[in-house]
Amino acid sequence: MGTTRDEQLKWRAKKVIPNAMYGHQSTATLPPPTPQFFSKARGAYLWDYDGNRYLDLMSAYGPNLFGYANEIIDAAYIDQLSRIDTATAPSHLLVELSERFVNLIEHADWAIHCKNGTDATSAALMICRAHKGRKKILFASGAYHGSATWCTPVPSGTVAEDRMHFIEYSYNDPDSLAEAAAEAGDDLAGIFASPFKHDILSDQALPTQEYAEKARTICDDMDALLVIDDVRAGFRIARDCSWSSMGVQPDLSAWGKAIANGHPLSCLLGSDRARAAASSIFVTGSFWFSSAPMAACLKTLDLIESTDYLEKIVSLGDHLRVGLGEISEGAGLNVRQTGPSQMPMVLFYDDDDNLDVPQGMAFAELMIKRGVYFHPYHNMFINASMTEADIDFVLERARQASREL
Amino acid sequence: MGTTRDEQLKWRAKKVIPNAMYGHQSTATLPPPTPQFFSKARGAYLWDYDGNRYLDLMSAYGPNLFGYANEIIDAAYIDQLSRIDTATAPSHLLVELSERFVNLIEHADWAIHCKNGTDATSAALMICRAHKGRKKILFASGAYHGSATWCTPVPSGTVAEDRMHFIEYSYNDPDSLAEAAAEAGDDLAGIFASPFKHDILSDQALPTQEYAEKARTICDDMDALLVIDDVRAGFRIARDCSWSSMGVQPDLSAWGKAIANGHPLSCLLGSDRARAAASSIFVTGSFWFSSAPMAACLKTLDLIESTDYLEKIVSLGDHLRVGLGEISEGAGLNVRQTGPSQMPMVLFYDDDDNLDVPQGMAFAELMIKRGVYFHPYHNMFINASMTEADIDFVLERARQASREL
Repeated sequence: MGTTRDEQLKWRAKKVIPNAMYGHQSTATLPPPTPQFFSKARGAYLWDYDGNRYLDLMSAYGPNLFGYANEIIDAAYIDQLSRIDTATAPSHLLVELSERFVNLIEHADWAIHCKNGTDATSAALMICRAHKGRKKILFASGAYHGSATWCTPVPSGTVAEDRMHFIEYSYNDPDSLAEAAAEAGDDLAGIFASPFKHDILSDQALPTQEYAEKARTICDDMDALLVIDDVRAGFRIARDCSWSSMGVQPDLSAWGKAIANGHPLSCLLGSDRARAAASSIFVTGSFWFSSAPMAACLKTLDLIESTDYLEKIVSLGDHLRVGLGEISEGAGLNVRQTGPSQMPMVLFYDDDDNLDVPQGMAFAELMIKRGVYFHPYHNMFINASMTEADIDFVLERARQASREL
Repeated sequence: MGTTRDEQLKWRAKKVIPNAMYGHQSTATLPPPTPQFFSKARGAYLWDYDGNRYLDLMSAYGPNLFGYANEIIDAAYIDQLSRIDTATAPSHLLVELSERFVNLIEHADWAIHCKNGTDATSAALMICRAHKGRKKILFASGAYHGSATWCTPVPSGTVAEDRMHFIEYSYNDPDSLAEAAAEAGDDLAGIFASPFKHDILSDQALPTQEYAEKARTICDDMDALLVIDDVRAGFRIARDCSWSSMGVQPDLSAWGKAIANGHPLSCLLGSDRARAAASSIFVTGSFWFSSAPMAACLKTLDLIESTDYLEKIVSLGDHLRVGLGEISEGAGLNVRQTGPSQMPMVLFYDDDDNLDVPQGMAFAELMIKRGVYFHPYHNMFINASMTEADIDFVLERARQASREL
């Protein structure tokens, strides 16, 4: 048993949890001082079990958009809990929320609400195939779309047949997309695309207009469905589907994480073109009809529509990016910051421009020791409860860390 | 647009929700007066949007075990919400809850917490296959294990490959199980079993000792894993895995629905034998580490361990079963009540002993009109907030309905 309370909890966890922790919140591959457990979350901050406070640049891997324990959103949740939550049928909030999404998201004509992002991407997969009774689905190599049998990034426990009709293409490469579509031929059911390239351990990339339009054109020409997996980036890029600014609308978009500011809710939105297929599949879950997360989502959408949260997180992200750029340049470090600044990905490279994971880990460790939860190889998430002073605090710590590196 | 508020909501839903409702809570195949929406839930009762109150025999299709809006459980949820819920890492409650399950459930040595019952059964499927790198899984024909691509009961949107390595057997038929295992041969990865036969539109059946032991013996002989899908029945049969009273322990058990009294939580429990395989797979979800549902689950487990809720729901179920038996006999109706009385399945048969769904629908309609939410073809769920007086109310309504039938 260790000396810190976090180590003691990890020691207990090892007995009753596989690997002491499963899934994306395991800290097994993060720098050793990274706490595995937190006792308190408020605004942009986390507290571990040993009295340390952290400015949390991960925002719960996305769900925290308006601050942990946001009083307005949580009050809506609690109020609804006293009326009706999980029951034998949904409340009117399911209709209200569906109408709200249809009004807010340009391509959407209908909604299915679920719990995990994977529920939404799995329903999208099924709807693509149901649309014309075809099988082939195109995915970008390295993209994460969830952890069901058909998409978990670790092959253990899956069989080859789970992905037999999947064809990979290279993100942002229209030729590669066209080749994959040609391989699928008249069995093409759909194309999955992340709103931008946000794979772990690699530079992020915004979509090119050519790539996005090619995906749309192929789907139109082949009567296949285009799916945007906006689970991770949804509402951090736009107050609409993330490809809206490029004028490219998908047939289906998957949402989750931030839509109810951390309350358990995901959803799949679709256009009328995909409605018949959506009506033909059977997907459900014990808690998919629960009203309290829907009340929290409605309140989150209020804040999305009525505040400048989006402009704020972009401005904070830019501030962080410029500051980190100056610091790394001053220290002679080879750092790349890619993708939207409000979803910062900070990767360290060596003098030969090869990814230097140990250096990134060392930097993250120095940051964590200084009270900043900094991720060495996954994109981070700015949230609207952060302030300029918080970013200045991160930059001050980064200056210290880069000196010590 | 209809004249009732429920009809008005359905009319709105039709525009923005596929089929006006998806999944198991759609009332499309239930008697027309069945409300699609409820405005309030308290204890054992639901209120629709037209001022009608219903004694709810469905208990949210399972999750309601200690009453809707249970004050003790909901207070624990709300209290935890103010500390930490969805964050960048879990709180100590994940460890505490895992320890609690390991102490309470005889076969369990570890736990993975998730959101949907389907998450738990999907993880079980993957662990079976990871255990020895084998592919074949045995399922009982007609059993429901969730709505992912590999298990949804409606084939639309799935491909044959999703179930290529599945072999069906007949529940409670040891010979059929042995034949299926022989067909799998040395590629047998695991056997899935419901704790009792609880398929829709058919009589329920308790497991025979011979069948349960055969499943265990085959898994031992072949080094395959035995999975009990206790999502629906968990904690309504025993304060342990549902096969514990027969002395048969699985390697994996899937839980959900009632474990947090309606708060979104499911889990997969496993024995040490399955730990290495469980440690090798990657499953996760944005809200799997959230603390508030875990606080609610711990409080629910307190009530499970410290109250006579189980004896009470069995007693109430017996009361209902005896009463309905007398009523149907008195009215000359051919009604079968099967399975555990606390999970009532009431099916109507014609004079030739053929299932008479229209008669069941007519009876359910008469019950619903009289303020009892009665399901014509799915098992129902007694909960511990019900009283003898509630059951007497159901029986009085059933007497009226059977006279009118």
